[in-house]
Amino acid sequence: MTEGLDQATIDLLGVLAYGELTAFERLASDAQLAPTIADKHALASMAAAEFEHYRRLHDHLRRSGIEPEKAMAPFVRPLDEFHDSTPPNDWLEGLIKAYVGDGLASDFYREVAAFVTDAATRELILEVLADSGQASFAVAKVGAAIEADPAVAGRLALWARRLVGEALIQAQRVAVDHDALTELLVGGSGDLAGIGRLLTRLTDNHTARMQTLGLQP
Amino acid sequence: MTEGLDQATIDLLGVLAYGELTAFERLASDAQLAPTIADKHALASMAAAEFEHYRRLHDHLRRSGIEPEKAMAPFVRPLDEFHDSTPPNDWLEGLIKAYVGDGLASDFYREVAAFVTDAATRELILEVLADSGQASFAVAKVGAAIEADPAVAGRLALWARRLVGEALIQAQRVAVDHDALTELLVGGSGDLAGIGRLLTRLTDNHTARMQTLGLQP
Repeated sequence: MTEGLDQATIDLLGVLAYGELTAFERLASDAQLAPTIADKHALASMAAAEFEHYRRLHDHLRRSGIEPEKAMAPFVRPLDEFHDSTPPNDWLEGLIKAYVGDGLASDFYREVAAFVTDAATRELILEVLADSGQASFAVAKVGAAIEADPAVAGRLALWARRLVGEALIQAQRVAVDHDALTELLVGGSGDLAGIGRLLTRLTDNHTARMQTLGLQP
Repeated sequence: MTEGLDQATIDLLGVLAYGELTAFERLASDAQLAPTIADKHALASMAAAEFEHYRRLHDHLRRSGIEPEKAMAPFVRPLDEFHDSTPPNDWLEGLIKAYVGDGLASDFYREVAAFVTDAATRELILEVLADSGQASFAVAKVGAAIEADPAVAGRLALWARRLVGEALIQAQRVAVDHDALTELLVGGSGDLAGIGRLLTRLTDNHTARMQTLGLQP
């Protein structure tokens, strides 16, 4: 029994669950780059929060009669490729990835979630997309690093642009391979003008995050 | 205020806390090597359990008036060096490390915990040392791999021996640098014969674990 979850909703839960699982792995792994135990503690705590999000999405799928592994399977390749193509070279790049990358992904998923008809699913998605503390932590640490050495700002801005570029490549692949998910987004937005406004919102939020970090968008 | 925690107990909590934190990072990182989503799920779940252990030790230190970062600091180098010198080359080596390495460490810490005078600390340590599911999972997966290709048994046995060797090097360093901790162990064991029996117990358990895996100890 699927308790009425349509294919687009299953796809959304699948990509989100695998996204949280890989975010957990990568954040925990990046914690090894932390310069102090306190920084390690902070990043590991965020990773643990991502795992908790993953667990809730996983359990929600199972309770809805969907095999979580099956729902996640189609998204393994794009998400693994995104992470494989963007390994942070140092602690600061890891923080930017956690803040800028997860921020952009969260904004996007939140927009899609608004079109999900199943209320329990919609609420769960909005809950797990809540910031796990990345934002203020990354802003403080990156800000301090730029103050100590203004030259790093250029390198980090380039890095953030690369993250967005790689994310778009994989998002494009997901869109092409998943008609139901794309339909949900296009249908929910109403028309091309709606999609345009959605993209504008995503871009505006991304720009705001970059400016908060003190980086050229 | 330290609520009566002596230096040896603080050291024990510090090495355990940092041990759980690094175990978390490495397990989560090794989850990237998992061949299936279900395997990734299993390893990530164990990693999350290690983080919960870390969090409890961290909070216990803080509640006892000890700065957790300060208690952990002296153990950063030996634990990081152990992990840096033993990066698993594949999924199976990661599982062996989780089972054989954590098993040996847990046995040792459990022996030391018996000599801790503070009852709340002693109970907490025994709780966080409880198996997070590594054992049965690793035994099943390694057993299946050896059945599929008996030749891997030799390589994995060598790997386990190397893990033990590297662990002993770091344990030796910790013993030399931490008189209070060493005193606790020697004083608690009573005499050299007591230490001898303790080492025999550790060796016996290690041998049993290797045999359960189907590996030459």
